[in-house]
Amino acid sequence: MNREVIAGIDLGGTKILAGLFDDRGQMLGKKRIPTDAAGGLQAVLDRMTGLIAELKGRHAPEGKLRGVAVAAPGPLNSETGLVYETPNLKWKEVPLREMLQEVLQVPVWVDNDGNLAALGEYTYGYPQEYRTLLYLTVSTGIGGGIIINGELYRGSDGGAGEFGHMTLVPDGPVCGCGNRGCLEALASGTAVARTARERVSRGRMAALREAVKGCIDKIDARLVAEMAAAGDGEAADLMDEAICYLGIGVANLVNLFNPQAIVIGGGMSGYRGLLQRVEEVVKERSYSSLSRKLKILPARLGSEAGLMGCLALASRKVKCEDSGRPFGIPADRWPGMVR
Amino acid sequence: MNREVIAGIDLGGTKILAGLFDDRGQMLGKKRIPTDAAGGLQAVLDRMTGLIAELKGRHAPEGKLRGVAVAAPGPLNSETGLVYETPNLKWKEVPLREMLQEVLQVPVWVDNDGNLAALGEYTYGYPQEYRTLLYLTVSTGIGGGIIINGELYRGSDGGAGEFGHMTLVPDGPVCGCGNRGCLEALASGTAVARTARERVSRGRMAALREAVKGCIDKIDARLVAEMAAAGDGEAADLMDEAICYLGIGVANLVNLFNPQAIVIGGGMSGYRGLLQRVEEVVKERSYSSLSRKLKILPARLGSEAGLMGCLALASRKVKCEDSGRPFGIPADRWPGMVR
Repeated sequence: MNREVIAGIDLGGTKILAGLFDDRGQMLGKKRIPTDAAGGLQAVLDRMTGLIAELKGRHAPEGKLRGVAVAAPGPLNSETGLVYETPNLKWKEVPLREMLQEVLQVPVWVDNDGNLAALGEYTYGYPQEYRTLLYLTVSTGIGGGIIINGELYRGSDGGAGEFGHMTLVPDGPVCGCGNRGCLEALASGTAVARTARERVSRGRMAALREAVKGCIDKIDARLVAEMAAAGDGEAADLMDEAICYLGIGVANLVNLFNPQAIVIGGGMSGYRGLLQRVEEVVKERSYSSLSRKLKILPARLGSEAGLMGCLALASRKVKCEDSGRPFGIPADRWPGMVR
Repeated sequence: MNREVIAGIDLGGTKILAGLFDDRGQMLGKKRIPTDAAGGLQAVLDRMTGLIAELKGRHAPEGKLRGVAVAAPGPLNSETGLVYETPNLKWKEVPLREMLQEVLQVPVWVDNDGNLAALGEYTYGYPQEYRTLLYLTVSTGIGGGIIINGELYRGSDGGAGEFGHMTLVPDGPVCGCGNRGCLEALASGTAVARTARERVSRGRMAALREAVKGCIDKIDARLVAEMAAAGDGEAADLMDEAICYLGIGVANLVNLFNPQAIVIGGGMSGYRGLLQRVEEVVKERSYSSLSRKLKILPARLGSEAGLMGCLALASRKVKCEDSGRPFGIPADRWPGMVR
């Protein structure tokens, strides 16, 4: 069958997740492989293009690839597809779109992973429900994206929505970005692990020390969260501190953007009670006229938010050759689906 | 001459500033009177409508009033003209648009004063120069407005852009809004005066104490700024602390909105070196890929920003009866003026 397909790639610092979609937005197949960033730029590109070839060969060998959308980390220019810098991949000024297009010979679109995850949650997670929505992901780092009136807001250089790099404690801990007291340095998984290690090495959190048999390097946010959930008071306090900072960051976003909804995803967001606690802090710290109608919601797409954002991006770029319908929108929702 | 006019009113907690404009945006006259908020809602409305009648009687007695635009404080709904709450005026849920329309019998538009000052600076302060611009006013309080792609961004309930109520120090001083450590509680004129009084009463800032002859209530931000400018080290330190907080707030806005320009106005912004110091902090604390191209600029319209914003708002609502040209745009800039 000569069906049309598009591919999405969520390029992370440690993993590459790719998916192949048909014109109704049905995922035909997906695969996750290690990024192996240490191998260098060309090797990563080869793995990306190889992965697309593999998925297409398996799921749509006769199909026509209409384009490839890429969710890439770090600040970048979504119009030119130039990636300015990605600390995780150690890339600088990489013309990702151009390089991929040359190999793939189809249109390639590149956008920030936080932006595309936001677009994914907006389009497929909570379809049509909230026209002005912020998406926050809280895991190793804290990022996100901004949807205003149903469109991605990228700022004047494509760099808007760096939620993790809002200063909340001017003399706080040093952040990976070089600044001090960023939300990411206070409330991310990395921040929780760092604080836990500090406390253990200062003789506190005895239960945690015991759990890692004194090997402080083994402490990570997941373990702290598990111990908190299992009833360890010190671990619970540490989690609560981080979540309060997250709440303060979200309260700031409410007072600045006055969105209809804030969707929170990422590994840390699964911690029991996190959303409710964030909501409490937001009620305390933002204007009641703004927080009253606000919805604070769990992400629905999990680790596929970026990939679904790739599909959403492609559906804004490509029309089906037969019907003129935007690519990736189920036929029974078109026309009528507001985007 | 049967010319068309519109009126703008900037309604403040202490003063009402009104202006009358012709269809080319020429200001025919203006007048400032005390708000006298203590007299109650109806008295304030009477003063507003009386002021318009007076200006029209004097400057365009034969003219046709096409509408009145009002810049009002506090969160409000710009579509319905309902003012939710204004601490300064002690209003709650006031249908300002409806009440004024009933008396004036012409269209009335109401928007937030920070929003309209932003629109004023965007349209007339730096015309056509920056399509994505944030405006901050730093005086008794800290407020502002957001222009995205040449349009006001108001958020989902008209409450976006509460820049002064971004938490920067979670356990910081109590703010008028009830929260702690808001930018406004750290960097506004009120904050400077409060901190100065605290320091004087704790035996510091001897020169300032002497300047007010021990009468702490006489200390205000203007005096602190004057003493700093005159070489008093302790006053200069205090000003610098406030300006650093302002810089941190602005850095946050850069990482969140990635605007082309941030325009800073209000009484405090006149302090020598303020913009440069803010710029330094922004460079330290925000992504260099975002701060590199950013312009941090002085407001150009001074205390008339809100009034000019009223004109800009009216020009989006009213077309000239003869030419169909938007009201308030000089003929030689139309067509061609991007708004």
